[in-house]
Parts: sequence; C-alpha cells; structure tokens
Amino acid sequence: MNHLLDDGPKDCCGVFGVYGHPEAARLTYYGLYALQHRGQESAGIVVSDGHSLKDKRAMGLVPDIFAENDFKRLTGHISCGHVRYSTTGSSLLANAQPFIINYAGHSLCLGHNGNLTNAFELRQRLEREGSIFQTTMDSEIVMHLLARNIHLGFEEGLIAALGELKGAYSFLFMTEDTLVAARDPFGFRPLCIGRLEDAYVVASETCALDLIDARFLRQVEPGEVIFIDKKGLRSVKPFRRERHAHCIFEFIYFARPDSNIFGQNVYMVRKRQGAQLAKEYPDIPADFVMPFPDSGNYAALGYARAAGLPFEMGMIRNHYVGRTFIQPSQDMRDFGVRVKLNPVRELIQGKRVVIVEDSVIRGTTTMARVKNIRQAGASQVHMLVSCPPHRFPCHYGIDFSTKGELIACHHSVAEIKAMLGLDSLHYLSIEGLLNSTKTSRDGFCLACFDGNYPVPIAEGTGKFCLER
Amino acid sequence: MNHLLDDGPKDCCGVFGVYGHPEAARLTYYGLYALQHRGQESAGIVVSDGHSLKDKRAMGLVPDIFAENDFKRLTGHISCGHVRYSTTGSSLLANAQPFIINYAGHSLCLGHNGNLTNAFELRQRLEREGSIFQTTMDSEIVMHLLARNIHLGFEEGLIAALGELKGAYSFLFMTEDTLVAARDPFGFRPLCIGRLEDAYVVASETCALDLIDARFLRQVEPGEVIFIDKKGLRSVKPFRRERHAHCIFEFIYFARPDSNIFGQNVYMVRKRQGAQLAKEYPDIPADFVMPFPDSGNYAALGYARAAGLPFEMGMIRNHYVGRTFIQPSQDMRDFGVRVKLNPVRELIQGKRVVIVEDSVIRGTTTMARVKNIRQAGASQVHMLVSCPPHRFPCHYGIDFSTKGELIACHHSVAEIKAMLGLDSLHYLSIEGLLNSTKTSRDGFCLACFDGNYPVPIAEGTGKFCLER
Amino acid sequence: MNHLLDDGPKDCCGVFGVYGHPEAARLTYYGLYALQHRGQESAGIVVSDGHSLKDKRAMGLVPDIFAENDFKRLTGHISCGHVRYSTTGSSLLANAQPFIINYAGHSLCLGHNGNLTNAFELRQRLEREGSIFQTTMDSEIVMHLLARNIHLGFEEGLIAALGELKGAYSFLFMTEDTLVAARDPFGFRPLCIGRLEDAYVVASETCALDLIDARFLRQVEPGEVIFIDKKGLRSVKPFRRERHAHCIFEFIYFARPDSNIFGQNVYMVRKRQGAQLAKEYPDIPADFVMPFPDSGNYAALGYARAAGLPFEMGMIRNHYVGRTFIQPSQDMRDFGVRVKLNPVRELIQGKRVVIVEDSVIRGTTTMARVKNIRQAGASQVHMLVSCPPHRFPCHYGIDFSTKGELIACHHSVAEIKAMLGLDSLHYLSIEGLLNSTKTSRDGFCLACFDGNYPVPIAEGTGKFCLER
Amino acid sequence: MNHLLDDGPKDCCGVFGVYGHPEAARLTYYGLYALQHRGQESAGIVVSDGHSLKDKRAMGLVPDIFAENDFKRLTGHISCGHVRYSTTGSSLLANAQPFIINYAGHSLCLGHNGNLTNAFELRQRLEREGSIFQTTMDSEIVMHLLARNIHLGFEEGLIAALGELKGAYSFLFMTEDTLVAARDPFGFRPLCIGRLEDAYVVASETCALDLIDARFLRQVEPGEVIFIDKKGLRSVKPFRRERHAHCIFEFIYFARPDSNIFGQNVYMVRKRQGAQLAKEYPDIPADFVMPFPDSGNYAALGYARAAGLPFEMGMIRNHYVGRTFIQPSQDMRDFGVRVKLNPVRELIQGKRVVIVEDSVIRGTTTMARVKNIRQAGASQVHMLVSCPPHRFPCHYGIDFSTKGELIACHHSVAEIKAMLGLDSLHYLSIEGLLNSTKTSRDGFCLACFDGNYPVPIAEGTGKFCLER
Repeated sequence: MNHLLDDGPKDCCGVFGVYGHPEAARLTYYGLYALQHRGQESAGIVVSDGHSLKDKRAMGLVPDIFAENDFKRLTGHISCGHVRYSTTGSSLLANAQPFIINYAGHSLCLGHNGNLTNAFELRQRLEREGSIFQTTMDSEIVMHLLARNIHLGFEEGLIAALGELKGAYSFLFMTEDTLVAARDPFGFRPLCIGRLEDAYVVASETCALDLIDARFLRQVEPGEVIFIDKKGLRSVKPFRRERHAHCIFEFIYFARPDSNIFGQNVYMVRKRQGAQLAKEYPDIPADFVMPFPDSGNYAALGYARAAGLPFEMGMIRNHYVGRTFIQPSQDMRDFGVRVKLNPVRELIQGKRVVIVEDSVIRGTTTMARVKNIRQAGASQVHMLVSCPPHRFPCHYGIDFSTKGELIACHHSVAEIKAMLGLDSLHYLSIEGLLNSTKTSRDGFCLACFDGNYPVPIAEGTGKFCLER
Repeated sequence: MNHLLDDGPKDCCGVFGVYGHPEAARLTYYGLYALQHRGQESAGIVVSDGHSLKDKRAMGLVPDIFAENDFKRLTGHISCGHVRYSTTGSSLLANAQPFIINYAGHSLCLGHNGNLTNAFELRQRLEREGSIFQTTMDSEIVMHLLARNIHLGFEEGLIAALGELKGAYSFLFMTEDTLVAARDPFGFRPLCIGRLEDAYVVASETCALDLIDARFLRQVEPGEVIFIDKKGLRSVKPFRRERHAHCIFEFIYFARPDSNIFGQNVYMVRKRQGAQLAKEYPDIPADFVMPFPDSGNYAALGYARAAGLPFEMGMIRNHYVGRTFIQPSQDMRDFGVRVKLNPVRELIQGKRVVIVEDSVIRGTTTMARVKNIRQAGASQVHMLVSCPPHRFPCHYGIDFSTKGELIACHHSVAEIKAMLGLDSLHYLSIEGLLNSTKTSRDGFCLACFDGNYPVPIAEGTGKFCLER
Repeated sequence: MNHLLDDGPKDCCGVFGVYGHPEAARLTYYGLYALQHRGQESAGIVVSDGHSLKDKRAMGLVPDIFAENDFKRLTGHISCGHVRYSTTGSSLLANAQPFIINYAGHSLCLGHNGNLTNAFELRQRLEREGSIFQTTMDSEIVMHLLARNIHLGFEEGLIAALGELKGAYSFLFMTEDTLVAARDPFGFRPLCIGRLEDAYVVASETCALDLIDARFLRQVEPGEVIFIDKKGLRSVKPFRRERHAHCIFEFIYFARPDSNIFGQNVYMVRKRQGAQLAKEYPDIPADFVMPFPDSGNYAALGYARAAGLPFEMGMIRNHYVGRTFIQPSQDMRDFGVRVKLNPVRELIQGKRVVIVEDSVIRGTTTMARVKNIRQAGASQVHMLVSCPPHRFPCHYGIDFSTKGELIACHHSVAEIKAMLGLDSLHYLSIEGLLNSTKTSRDGFCLACFDGNYPVPIAEGTGKFCLER
Repeated sequence: MNHLLDDGPKDCCGVFGVYGHPEAARLTYYGLYALQHRGQESAGIVVSDGHSLKDKRAMGLVPDIFAENDFKRLTGHISCGHVRYSTTGSSLLANAQPFIINYAGHSLCLGHNGNLTNAFELRQRLEREGSIFQTTMDSEIVMHLLARNIHLGFEEGLIAALGELKGAYSFLFMTEDTLVAARDPFGFRPLCIGRLEDAYVVASETCALDLIDARFLRQVEPGEVIFIDKKGLRSVKPFRRERHAHCIFEFIYFARPDSNIFGQNVYMVRKRQGAQLAKEYPDIPADFVMPFPDSGNYAALGYARAAGLPFEMGMIRNHYVGRTFIQPSQDMRDFGVRVKLNPVRELIQGKRVVIVEDSVIRGTTTMARVKNIRQAGASQVHMLVSCPPHRFPCHYGIDFSTKGELIACHHSVAEIKAMLGLDSLHYLSIEGLLNSTKTSRDGFCLACFDGNYPVPIAEGTGKFCLER
C-alpha cells in the first residue's frame, strides 16, 4: 500500500464500476482514487449514457488526470474505471485501460486486474486468422475472442471468449447498456459488489466502497460472471469449479488495511501476522519496535503488543515525496532513502531496535534503510518479516515475475541478514502466515513462497511476451 | 507537519541557503523539499555565481516546480531558497519569494519567514517619499529601507534597515557575493546553520540539514546578523537584547518531528506532551488510544505509553491525497474527511476510543473526523489535545491571525466538547506544555494561548493590510 | 492555398515520404511544412530505422506539433508523413495519420490522400468476419484487407488489398524496411517522386521537393504501385488501365502556385485562366483589377494584363491571422472578414473595381468582402470567377461533399450576382478552363462542374458514413 | 509590415487604448491584433472598471496570449494595450508592457512606443536617490519621475515628469479613472484618436481603428498631452514647440499600407515611391517587375506601372511560416529563405527580372533571395530600393541602433551590388523620397539616411544601456 515510499512490489491494477447512478463517472473517480495504491502508471474512466461511450485515459495519478471539466463531458449512468501498473504490456498510453473497441456499430470496454497465462498462444492464433491488434496488452485478446464469437449474441459470445482464457482475471466489461463483472475460477484477485441507493458498484477492494459511502453487498465469487443491466443483476457460473487460490500477498502488502478482501479485514490480519511473529520469535533483545512506515505499521503494532515491547515511529516520512523528484547529481550517501524517511536520532541513539517489515523483495531499499538506522546510532538492529521468503516469481499479476529480482531466490536467510547488515533476521513461517488468515492452505495461492502454481505456466509467459 | 491532511493552521514560510558549494541550487532544492511542510503555496531558488543572480520561482510544490533542466541554468556557489505560505500578501506569483531587486547595478534577494508588525506604517512613509512598491509583501519594505541607507555601505545599510523593523523575522539575504542570515531579537522563528564540507548551510529546521547530510553547527541566535562571504562567517549583534519568545506552536504542530529547534528534538517534546496529558488526565476509560495521523502520532504514543493503554492506528491515510482533488457535486456525507482518512471499522466497532490530537483550531475537520469514528461503531470517543485552547490570533507569522477563526475564542471547553460530539475533551495546561519543553515561560511566545504579545501589535496589522 | 484567409473548400490531405536519408524524419517535417496548405487539422511523421517504427502524431499545424527534441527520437532512414484535413472520419487524434498497425510481429503505416467510394460496404464485410476497427477512417480498411491477404506475402497481399478499393487514393505505405507509393488508376490526386542525393522522396506536390532542394524525377503514374527498398525502386502496374481523371480543382485552388502537378505549373495555368476570362468577358468597364489575396492573385494578374487594366492589391492582409482568434461578443459589422483583409479606402473610393476570384463555393465570405469593398467607397464592383459554377459535390476527397453547401447548386448566376451585391458576375466556361490547362476534357475530373462522376458513387458515401 | 517573412528592421511597439466602452479589453485585443506588425515579442492589456486595474501580459503573439476566458476577467470601460518589440530592455516577461505600478494606494499603467535618449542619466540619478527599479525598460523611469512629483497632483506631476524626458515617445497612461495619450514634441512616432459610439480610442495606426469600425478623429499632435476621463477630453500642450521629425521609415516599411499616418495613406506613398524610382531610373532592361512579398508589393506596383513593365508575383509565400520553425541540422542551401518564399521557376527561367525592395538593412536575407532568383534561372537580376541607403543607426525606437548592423554604413552601392549578386542596384534619392510624401524635409526625421539627429544623442544610449 506504500508505493510512493519504497521500491517494493507493485500490484498490477484496480477496477471500479457503477451501474445506475446519474453521476457514475464522478463516483468512479472517487473509487479509483481510493484504489490508487493498486496502480499509479495510468488511469481511465469510460462512461455510458445507454447509447454511446465517452472516455478519458491518461498516464499519471488519478487526481492529476481528471479535472472538474471532464465530468461535464463524461455524462451517463454506467461507468467502468481502471488504475494500472503494467504487468503484461509496456508503459504506453495506448495501453491505458479501460480498453475500448468499436465493433460493428457497438462499443465495448474492458478493465482488467490479473494476468493471462495463455496470452501468447491465443494472440498468435488470432493474428494467423487476420486479426489486427492495437496494443500489447493481454486484455485485448478477450475482445478479439468475443468479436469472433459475437454471432452467438453478446452474453454467450462473452462466456465463450472467457472460456478460452487461462490465468488470473478480475474483469469489468461495459457495453452501451450493460456492466459485466467476471472473476476467474481460482479467484486470484479480489472483486466485490456494493450498493449505493439504487445503483450497483463493483470494486477491487472495499475501501473504495467506503469512500463513496456504498454498502458492501458481497464478493464476486471465483468463476462467477455477473451481468448488470436495466433488468437488474444476473449471475452466471459457466465454468468448471476449481479450488480457490486467493493471492495471499494482497493480505501481506497490496490491499489497503481498511479493506476487507477474501472475507477478512486486512488490518486485523496484519496485526495477527505480527502477533504470530512474536510467537515464533519470542526472545529478540530490544529496547523498542518500529516499522518502516506505513506498510509495516500494522504487523509492527501486533508484534510490539504481543512481545511486550514499546512501539515507536522512529522514521519520519516526507509527506511530499512524489515521482518526479530530481536525483542528486553527485554522490549523496543513501539519499534516495533519506528523502523519504528520516530517522529520529534522539530516539534511536544507543538503542536496540526491532524493525518489523512486511516483506523483502529485492532488498536494496531495506539495506539502505537499515544503514540509515545504524547511522542514527542504533546499537543493534533486528528485523522480523511478516511473511516467508519470496523464492518464486508471480505469474498471476504481481510485478516480480522473474527469479532474478528476488533476493531470497539466490540467498539463504543468513546471507540476507549479512547483506542487509542486521544483527538478526527472521521470517514468518508459511504455517504462521496461514494461521494469521484463519484459512486453510487450499484457499490461497502461495506460489511465490512454495513454487506451487495453481494454474500451469506456459513457456514464454514473461511480462513482455506480447511485445517484439 | 501534516498540511495535506487537514485544515489546521499553516506556517508562513521556510528558508534555506548555501554558501560555497558548486551545486548550491540543487542542494537548496533538497533543502526546500525537506521544508515543504512550512509552505506549499509557492517556492523559489535564487543562485549566484559571484557575479549575477539567476532564479526560478513559481506557484506550487517544490517537486512540481523544478526539473532537472533548471539546474543546468541555475549555476553558482551561493543560493537562497524559500517556500511560502502567504501570511502578509495575497496569493500571487509576484509575491513568490525569494524576492529580487536590482539596485544601482547590483542585485539583492531576500527570503523571509515571519511577519513584521509595523509594515503598514513603514510602507506609508516610504511611499510618501517617492518609493514605488512592486508587491504587497511586508518583506519588500526591507529592500526599500536598505536602498535609502545604501550610502552607508551594504553591511551598515542593512543593519540600519533591520533596525527599523518590528515583529518576527528569520531572514536570508543574498547579494552577488554574500549570504546573510538574520533573526529578530525575540527569536520567534527558528533558524540554524550547518556545514557540508567547506560550505555553509542555513535552514529553518535541522531536518533540511539531515537530508543533504550536512552537520548541524548551531542556531542563528536571536538578534544575530551573520554575513557569509569569501572571507568566511562574520557575526554581528547590533540590536538591543530582548527576552526570547520562541514560537511554542513550532513544537506542537509546525516543525517536523525529526527536527531539532530551539535546542530540543521535536519528536521527544511531543512524546512528553502526551505523557504530560496522561499525568493531567489519568483516568480516561478506554480500550485503546489512536491519533489522527500523522501530526497527532507522537503525543498519542507518549500518552498511550504513560497511560498504559494499547496504541492503534485506526484511521488509514490515502497516500495520494493532493490539492487538486475534485469535490463531490452532490451531497456526500463528510466526504472531504473520508477521502483523506478512512476508519478501520473492524478495529473500532464497539470500542471506547481515546483520540490524541495536537491542536484544535477551527474545529471543523475534527468534528467530521469524530463523526466518522462514531459511524465506524465506537461506543465512546474521548479527545485529549496536546496544547491549551487557542484563544488569541498570531501576529508573528502563523495563519490564524483573526479571532474569528478560533473555536476556543468563542466557546468554552464544554461547548467545544458538545460541538465536536465527544464524550470528553481535555486540553493540556500551559504549565504542562512548558514542562514538556523543559524551558521556562520566559523563553516562549505563548500569545496564542494567553494573549500576552511580546511585541506590541499596531492597529491594521491584519493579513491584507498592504493590499488595497 | 489560402486556407487561413477564407472559408473556401479545404483539401483533404498531403503525403510526404523519404527512403534512404539519415535525416528522413527531419526532411519529412520540411516536406509537410511545404504541404501544410493541403491539411491543417493534424499531422504526423512515422520513421523507421529498418527495424522498428517510431511516430509522432498530433492535432494542429506542423510547426506547432514538432520540436527539435522530437527529431532526437525519430531516428531512421525511411519515413512517412501526412497532413490531414478530414474528409472521411471525424476530427479525432485517433484519426491522425499516418496510421500504424502492428501485425503478427511486423509494423505497417499508411498515409492517404483521397477518398474511397466503397468504404462502407468493405467495412461491413470485414466486421462480419470478426475484424475490430480502431478508427473511423476509410484508410484503415486497407490494413484489414492486407491482414486477410498477408499469407500471399507483403507485396502480393498489398496488391490484392488495393484491388478491392474503389475511388481516389494517393497512398504512402511504410514497413520496417520498405516505402510504397500507390496511386489509383484514375489519378485523381497528384503524387510525385524526387531524388535528394541517394535518397528517394515521394510528395503530393513539387513545392515540397523544392523546399528540401530535391530534384523532381517524375509523377507516380495513375494505377502505379512503387516499392522502394534496399534493392532500389520497383514499379508495378497491376490494375486495369482507366482514363485519367485528374482533379481540375487542384489547378484552380488547392495546389500551391509554385508546384507542378499533372505535368504543368500551377501559376502559369492560373494566369492563363485569367487571360481566358479576358477573352470571354472583354468589356468590363473598370478603373482597376484586384484579387482577394492570395489565392486570387494569379488569375487576377493574368486578367489585368490581357484586359489592359491596372492591377492593384487593394485588400491588405493581417499577417497574424490564425485559427484561435476570439470572436467579437457584440455585433461588429463583417468583423470576421475585416480582421483578415482590410480595404485601402484611399485607393478604392469612387473607383470601378473588378475583383478576380478563384472560386465561389458557399458565397458567405465573398458576400462580406464585396460589402467591405463597397463600404470603402467603390462606385462599381464587378466579379470574374476563374472557374465555372460549382454545382455538384465532390466524392473524391474535397470538402464540399453535399449539395447543400454549394451556392451554385441552388441559384442561377443572376441570383448569385444579386446575393453577393455585385454590379456584374461572370464565370469562366468549362471550355475556357480546359483551354487554360492545354489538356483535353478526358484527362480531368470535372464532376463538380458537370456532375459526370468518373467512378460511380454508392449510396451512403457521405463524410460520416463510417461513424455511428 | 512583413516581420514574419524577413530579417529586416523591427519596430519597437504599438499602443492601443479605449475610454468609455463596456467591452474595452476586447476592443483592445482587436486593436493590438491589427497592430501586431509593430511588435511580436510580447503583448498586454490592462483594463480598469473605474476602481482597480486588472491585466494580462505575456510573451508571444496577441492571438496566442489571449483566450475567451480572459475577457470574463478583464472587465471595465477603460483599457490600455501594448505590443512590444524590445528596443531598450531585453526580452523578459517582466519587461512586457503595459507596465503597472501600485503607488500609495493607486495604480498606474503605461504603454510606450519610442525610445528615450536620456534614460541612462535619469535612472542613475533616481537610483542615487533611493528608487528601486523593477525592469530594464526606459519606460519605468517615467513612473519614478511621476512618483517623485505626485505631490503636485496627478496631472501636474505627470507633465513635470514628461518635461524631464528627451527622445521619442508616444505614451498611453491609464489610472483607475483616466486615460492619457502623450506624444513627444518632435512627433517621431504616430499616434491617433478615434471615436466608436461614445467611446474614445487611441491607436498607433489607423488600421486598428478600421478593424473595430471606429471613426478617425485626428492625430495626437506632437507635444500634446490628452487627458480623457468622465468629464471628456482635455488637451494640454505644455512643452516648447519643436520642428516636426516624423519617422520616414514608417512610410517606407513599418506602418501597414492600409493605415494613414502623419496625414497620408501609406499604400499611396509607397506607390509614389515606386513611380519616383521609375523617374530616377527609367531605363532598366527587364522582362518583368516583381516584389519580395508582401512589404515590397506596393512600390513594385508603382514602379511597374510608371515604367510600363509587366508586374508578376514570382515568389510564393508559405502561409504557415511562424517563429518556432525547426532549423535544418545539416547544410541546406539558403533554406531559411526558401522556407518562406519559393520562386516560380517556370516564370523566371531565362527572364530579366527587376526586384523592387523596400529597404536593405543588413543585406543577408536579400542576398539569399537574389541567389534563389538566379537559381530559378533568371538571366539578369536588377534591384531598385524604395529608399536611400541606411547609413546611420536609429536612436528613436527602431531596431537598427548600431552602425555594425547596416550594410550601407560600410560599403558603397557598387560594393553592395556585388555582394548581393545583382546586375544593377539603385536606391531612391532623399529628394525622391520626400517628393513621394509631398512634405518638406523639415517635417521628417531622416537621420538613418543623413545622420542629422533632431534630438542629440548621449553617450551610452545603446539598446542595453539599462542592463548590466
């Protein structure tokens, strides 16, 4: 949730849609604003008044893209919004979603959170048959599959198209008069439905419902396709039932702590991760506990409480850190880290400090921060990580899709401890992590920890496989 | 320090200067970045290569104003930077500082933190004598006084000009070859000096020194004028010695917690304010303590520790809140507050909550936040404020310069408690506040609490007195 | 050629391409600059370095779109540029050309001058077969036809695609390694080839060759497809030979007077049109002759010489007239005309004036200008038009595609004379027009004058037939 | 009048003001638009509603600076506008006029056309007395002189201030409730008054009156100061009467041909210059006469008529030439000239051509154009210049203020003929020039031809004398 502050993993996307509200586009703006942590590269809103689609999409953050004037133009009662951090497809405006096509007199738009694992072979087949692709996004493939099946009618054609897909998807489709939410049979990514007065709202996380004061109705279920139009809401479950494979990293890092996903509150799960750490590592000798704010805050609170240690906020954030910051031209020691978080020397000097961190992906930022804590005079620095070591890439939509990026893929815990300059380093166990979620191993995708991929991975499924 | 997040008071300005570094402008960029919390309306950097001044000033935040290219142009070894939130003078680009004049073949620039109390009468006198003013800033007056005294030489002329001023100022002057730091005899606003290799650095707060890895040397003393040129640093104390009147609100709210000002660390003072609250109000019946992040964090930690209550972070910040946010067109209940902070319902529901807040100025934001906490299901909401009630306007540079803006000016604590919808409301006492700073009453300006103004206030000294 | 100055007809497009020059994009910038009169709505340049395409396309004029920096990025030795005034397809950036597609690992781009007359039926067929269109431009159809024929190889596939088209086209195609110029069998629009050192240059008009100092080689012949790649230039003529149907309006109005098109110089043809007018109408009683600058200059010169009357430039242009001019809020008599051309009262007062005008399409601008001349004191105003009355819409790429826009479609010459407030009005005869070009009737399309359409027009071929 | 098209001299400025019209700012926009040829660097409009001034000033052309929205803000019935090409003062936004000061509770603005010859000594004196200058413009000096004399009242103070000035000025002043037009006693620059309904209009040239359909009333007389307020128009002539010294170069080049200045129409004067050339040089052997459009058009017409030679327009302008054009990176022969004007080879080839040019200042552009004509195949190229050789710099507001810029200052006519590559070169005589204006030698400033300066020139009065 802390993307401006570190170089950790980035999620791919968030979606938000409305059916049946006169200010659909404006509500979507707020919804995307609340989901901004799920994608900061580009954003877009498409709106329909029942007859035609209007859109605005651009690179950048939601509040930088949209201005009051846009909403004078984006009139309509159905809308589909998207925030994106590229997973498949490079960083181009053309790849900004929602993606719109005009097809035989009709318009269709699509927002996608997730990653298809058979994108490459599907696209090859379609191009052989004469389809021309506009983007490098795997999402576009769905549109072409639908165009080739449209003779079945929109609903049947869409289900036929979805039936050819493999991998992770939480989709939001919109035509001139219908909003469709669809989630893959494994349920990798979250997706929920809410109500605001007579309108339906679909969102990646519940924090987006909260912001517009919508009421949480239920999750879109894995394998469910929901059509919403003037006749109301219609649910279809046309696919083979699969075991659930919710992304556990949503709990550890991605989702906002005030969201409920996969049936639980994220803040509470994180505090339990911290408490679980205290159970697994009860005897760390320390004067106080502190997080690297804000993503580590909640596990740190849980740990400090359970371990009976004081909790401090010893790193002060610069509230104005943004993405356009000018880098120093000459060598300034650990500048990139210090500009975001400055340690409070008076607090740290001479003290034994426990850092609780949510995850260590590449390790470079963590290394610099630990060094900073040491320079502020800490006598000992211990680190507890509220998840197991990341040893395997993700192919379902998270931005660490090659092994090369993962420090734990190439190094033992002892080596990492030494590289990060720590006095001790401990990771939460897989069992401990599952305990904190109160769910069985079968409900989650743990592939990034154990390499056990719920959907098989084809060769050549890397991030750039659709680009030349 | 939390200006993006609430409607609390805003400081007027921050200054940052460098003498003797080849990348003076770039260092100033970083310094202003670290001081951004002291002013978000405009920013500027003026640089000298020993022969002529170059500048860039604009409305907006430091990272939005400056780009890499600017520093190719802003070459020189002396620089003077400023971030501004208007106190005197309206919001115009022309009023962006540092303010530059060209005078008889020389250039002079000025950055100002503070507020002059005899600005109106000085300007009237100068205009009668034929001076033409370019701006509505009180800072310009100093330039004209200097121009009328320049026959005495720059140093003597400047001291003569400063001698006519009354009120609060931490000034940074720069000519083609000299950097000057000056602080009023009462020392209302902070100002310090550091060293980076052979260069001197002057800054409003030490957090700006930390960012560029400069070493803290000492404070500029109240009533001191420091000239830095190729001959080194030269200190002059030409004015009558006065008792000190440091702004205590810098400790409570303005300064960054990682800064040391007036000889103490801000984080530590705030924790002691919290502990002091626990001493004054030991028996609040509660399940946990929480702040409104981030400005209330430190006093809340201090209180929770001293009171033996759990500390939680029950309000989740949206990390992307900026100033261009589009307001809802229709009525959305407490939207403006919810977009910044969303309560974690699972944590709060059915609980007795203590909020520790740094200050309550107008009360409108606080009221909405308390309502939000109640809507999340809190059974009781108590509030502790880590300073006394604000009953008097500030005339020394803080943005609550009329009584009308202060809720405590017109209402008793009991009335405020009712208006805010609280179960109980308690303020820190003046004595408790002074205890937390370990300094005597004579060292501080407490005028906003007790109406005791160290420098007398003339009629017509409101914010807009220099505008027509 | 005078588009900033009046509301006359606008041409649809200009194309410019380079093969084999290290500064291909920059040369194309200059070429488009020289062709700006052929389209002011949008412009674009696509460049290839032999391996991949880079592009810039935007709404606006060529010098406003491109900056020096663009050419650091647009590196390569092959380029394809386009200026556009929309004929088919509405005014959207997405419709800016050259149009690029990525197809099965290859890129292809296309610039089009002309208008297809069977666009609607081709697109309907392709959509039925599952093709998804990105734009509303008829040009995109060619791409899909090619994609469906690509199994024949690029060259054969392209010829097969072109073979399905009806109407007017001067095409420029570019792949990673090949530049292709193609002109429809009737040769409606001009297209020529030049050489600059070892490079080949393709342009709509020769004035673009002049600007970059390229040597004119020859016209691309009607029905010819020219492939240029590292093996050199290869000409193919795969289509049935048709009679030529050059657009005679290029001579009258569109083309720049310094261009040679269809084998003749435009300036010289226009002077002969003026001389022809003097032959047909020898006895106009007048003190002097004047044009509405600049488009009428050349026929006016030719007429004045042949008629033995003085030539004057009695309307003074404002050199800074652009498209963003703010209209008067209150009623200002004929302001829109006066802002562009101001009559010289001292010259006109009390005089009998002959205006030679190139064409009268809608008549509104002409009416206001005549009124202006009268207000400046002219005792008589006669008008000679250097072409016959426009009675029929154009379907081959010129922007008067409905009868409603044409004053001569609904009114006799006597009526038009009265409407325009003239003392006399005379049009050049079709025979006179053909005499001025020294070419037979069979070489030209005269459809706008005589309704004789060389390529039959399908129902529903209006400008917006591809939009919903 | 032809500034986009060549590198000839540039005028300094144009002014336009309105008193008593509800749309004063909008009328001023149109007025400045018509005067754009007098200054393309920056423009500004200041408007008063009787109580306070509002303004917009920016670098660039009038239509690029102002948008419809500006006029919602710029409300009022009095206005003062300015277009500027810098004479004294460098190219900075701060130097954009009208220049505004706020003085002791009042506002005053100023637009200036001309150049003061005692600016340097006046500014030195004022700075010694403690005045701080905001700009490097000589115009600011008037403001400070007024501020020092304001105790006499506005009218008397302004006359006292003007009385200290030497050199050329056509001033437009505006206070909250008064518009003032003032012209120096020699009358170097034009200035006229018109009426539009009940409003008064002041403009540099009459073409600006024509555009808004205002009626020409009279010139502001040399040495006259006109105050316009709610009591009406009041004329004062407080200065010693001097002989007139109208700038004859306004007739030759600057003023628009449709303007009347100094009592005569510019188009007619230019035609007479051409006729005078035919009288002085009757036997040039030529096939036709042509101008370099547009500034040479009128003298060329006059010459062709008187000499009995055909008139042709053998150089075709690119209508889209603007200032942001990207220069060729590699050597392209005479590109900068060709991009603006392209010769019509079919017309010129094998012909003896007479070029009539308005003036030859530096000669570089002329040289390239002549070369272009030769490359188009001309067998002979003769040039006639419609004024005498420029041998002396101008100190009264025209942009050739040093001798170094003037080709005729260093070379004989024979040398210039050789340098320009001409077969013959002839200049109009001073007597011939005066004949064309039908005015005596005493009415004009001919200093640029004969070095006879009406107002003595101080040392150090070059363009940059007020900058360091």
